[in-house]
Parts: sequence; structure tokens; C-alpha cells
Amino acid sequence: LAYKLYYWPGLQGRGEFIRLALEEAGADYLDVARTPGGTQAMLKLLESHAPIPPFAPPILQDGDLLISHVANILQYLGPKLGLAPPDEAQRLTAHALQLTLTDFVAEIHDTHHPIASSLYYEDQKPEAKARAADFLQNRAPKYLFYFERVLQQNPHGPAHILGKSLTTVDLSLFQLIEGLHYAFPRAFKSITPQIPALTALHTAIRHRPNIAAYLKSGRRQPFNKSGIFRHYPELDAG
Amino acid sequence: LAYKLYYWPGLQGRGEFIRLALEEAGADYLDVARTPGGTQAMLKLLESHAPIPPFAPPILQDGDLLISHVANILQYLGPKLGLAPPDEAQRLTAHALQLTLTDFVAEIHDTHHPIASSLYYEDQKPEAKARAADFLQNRAPKYLFYFERVLQQNPHGPAHILGKSLTTVDLSLFQLIEGLHYAFPRAFKSITPQIPALTALHTAIRHRPNIAAYLKSGRRQPFNKSGIFRHYPELDAG
Repeated sequence: LAYKLYYWPGLQGRGEFIRLALEEAGADYLDVARTPGGTQAMLKLLESHAPIPPFAPPILQDGDLLISHVANILQYLGPKLGLAPPDEAQRLTAHALQLTLTDFVAEIHDTHHPIASSLYYEDQKPEAKARAADFLQNRAPKYLFYFERVLQQNPHGPAHILGKSLTTVDLSLFQLIEGLHYAFPRAFKSITPQIPALTALHTAIRHRPNIAAYLKSGRRQPFNKSGIFRHYPELDAG
Repeated sequence: LAYKLYYWPGLQGRGEFIRLALEEAGADYLDVARTPGGTQAMLKLLESHAPIPPFAPPILQDGDLLISHVANILQYLGPKLGLAPPDEAQRLTAHALQLTLTDFVAEIHDTHHPIASSLYYEDQKPEAKARAADFLQNRAPKYLFYFERVLQQNPHGPAHILGKSLTTVDLSLFQLIEGLHYAFPRAFKSITPQIPALTALHTAIRHRPNIAAYLKSGRRQPFNKSGIFRHYPELDAG
């Protein structure tokens, strides 16, 4: 039985964190909105799934279950895909790490949309410049140095953020580093020497067979100016 | 054995969503940072808890377990406090609702801090005005009408957001309505007639014996200009 993933077509977005977990595990899944009529099916789900429709994509369907929010979906999928730590205490910690990452991703989005997601970037450029400057000076280092520290402190070594094997959090960290490289190449070049463990994790995951195959496939959509990670040179550090 | 809650003293903030659940259940808990030396203890935890320190408060300690992020803590506490739905499918939905609420709360915070949380509100007033206007026109109705619709569609009636008994999500919705009334009294007056079920839920929870006693106690801190919900008349609708 295949998983069904519902997410806006044409961008990686928040759906990408789910795709990476499914791809790493070699899971059978359908990226519904990228199939003919799929976007309509997704919109219908948001409109009519009673009594509790999801608020927004990404949404995972597994049989009768309908699950929304990246962290919620990954918490559900992790154990099924062999990408979760073994005990409850570690799963609570993994979920906390994933939720920290969720907050980070929202702040990355707001660098290009600090005033209103209903407006174009072009309608909030000066504010985006101010927000991106603060993001690169304060927020990005705060989050990145936190994850770096957690990696470095792992008693099993810095290959994974938690415990001794790969989890969905590692895969999400890969996407985070990948996206920041794309969006802020200059700023990220200067921060990279300060996050050696995250950089090594990013490289290692990039070369995992299933991930490498996925990144080369048509299933991986390119970064673009519709996603969370957007490259506007004027927002990047000088 | 008492739960220990760690959260910044002097404001309700994100800690309040946890306090309301503990208070409703009559649970034994210590609000550590409001005791002598407690803030120091919290800062030490953030600095030195190895290998994985929490990124930020609120943090719940239950014996050896240390759990961070509001939604993660409530997901953990819900079943222990008798404030969670009975089966897995409903718990996944409850968590999705709570995470939707988390996103809403972050957007409420950003109405007064659209550029940088490291700057004062006074240093980002024009941007706050623009963001608050979009929030009141687009975002707040989108979230509120969603929760209203979910309440109205509950097959067990609109007294609870999910199933037939009280959950932590209902308590968090109470705090949301309470905070929006405080922060945006004018705007909220005009939206109230459009959210009758949320309004009734808010009133019903306000009168639950344990919640009513808590709200009258010194344990409930007043809303103020350090919290998430802040009343700046210039940000409220005309």
C-alpha cells in the first residue's frame, strides 16, 4: 500500500522534508499533486475532508489516516521507515529537534516575506532586506551553532544528530544546509568553517545511494523563487 | 512526583499553554523560574544539559525526561492528564491542530516584531503596522475561521474541537481567544460575531472550576508588553 503525499506542485517547499524521508527509505509513495488532476484532489481534501480538514499541505495519507504538518508526519513515518530512534525519550528529543527546525524554516521564509505572505516579494523589498540582515547576523548563527553543538556532543559521534543511526532529523538538516547554500551563497560561505559537523553531515547524506539517486531524478524539483529557500542576491550578505 | 516547568518569568508567553493544561488537571507542578534561583537553574539547563540541550523554553521536566516545544510537551502531557483523545488517529489530528495553533502564535508575535526579535518594538513600528494590518485582514480570519469550522463540524457538537471531551487543544484555543481580545480589542469585537463556537468555547473554559480558580490566583500573570499578545492601540484595527 503506497503512501500518498499532498503538496503544492512546482516547488520543493515543506513537502521536501517528507520526500527525503520517503526516498531514503525507498518507500512506495505517490506525490499526488504532481500527477494529472492531483492538485484538484488536494484542494478538494482541504475543502471537504470532514470533520477535520488539514489546515495546509503537506499532508500524508496512509490508508484512512490523514496527517498534516511536517513534524507530525515525520514523527509518524520515522518508526515505519526505520528512521526514528528506538526509545520514547529519544523520540521526544527527536521531535523537539524537528520542531526547532520547523521554527528555523519559518524564519527563513520570512526573510523574503516579512510583512505579508499575500504580497509579492517585490512589494516588501526594503523590509526583506532588514529582516534578512538580522537573520544572517543573529538568527541563522543561533540555530546553526545550536545544531552544530548538538552534533558535536553526540556521544556516538557527530555523524548523526541523535543516537547512532540515521533519523528523519538528519535528513531535514541536509535539506536545511542545501537550501541555505542556495539562498545565501555568500553569507553561507563565511559561516561554513564554523559548522564542520553540519557540513560533514550534509555531504554524507548527499552521497547516500537513495538520496544521490533521488537528487539526480526528475522527482527532485529545483530550487526556485516559489519555495522557502529563495536566492535574491540583494538579501545575501556582502 | 511533581512536574517542573521552565519558562521565562514575568510573562505568560508560550509557557501559558502548558500552565493551562497542568492547572485544568490539578497537576502538581513547579513553575521553576518563578522561584528563587529558578531562572538561573533554567539558564544552566539550556547551557549545560548534555548531549542535547533544549533550544529554548518552555521546557517540561518529568523525572529524567526533558521535553521542549509547546506542542511536544502537550502531546506528552495530554494522555497523562486525561486531556488527550483516546486513539492514535485522533491524537495525530490533535497534534496537527496544536501545530496549526503554534504557527498562528508565531504570526501573532511577529505583528509587533516583523523585522527582528532582537530589536525593540519601537524600532520597527511602521513595519509592525503593515504586518498587523495584513494579519488582521488576512491571517487571523484564515486561522480563526478554520478553527470555527472544525468546531462546528464536530459530530459530537461544538463544545470541543475534537471528539467528545476536553483536550489540551481546547485549552490552547481558550488562551488564543483570550490573548487576541487583549491585544486587538477593536478588531476582535468586529470578528467575534463570526466565530460563535470559538466564543462559546472560550466562555465555557473560563468558567471551568480549576481554570476560574487559576485565573483569579497569583499564578496567572497578567498580559503585558513582554509577552506574545501585546496591546499597542496603533496596531489594532480602526
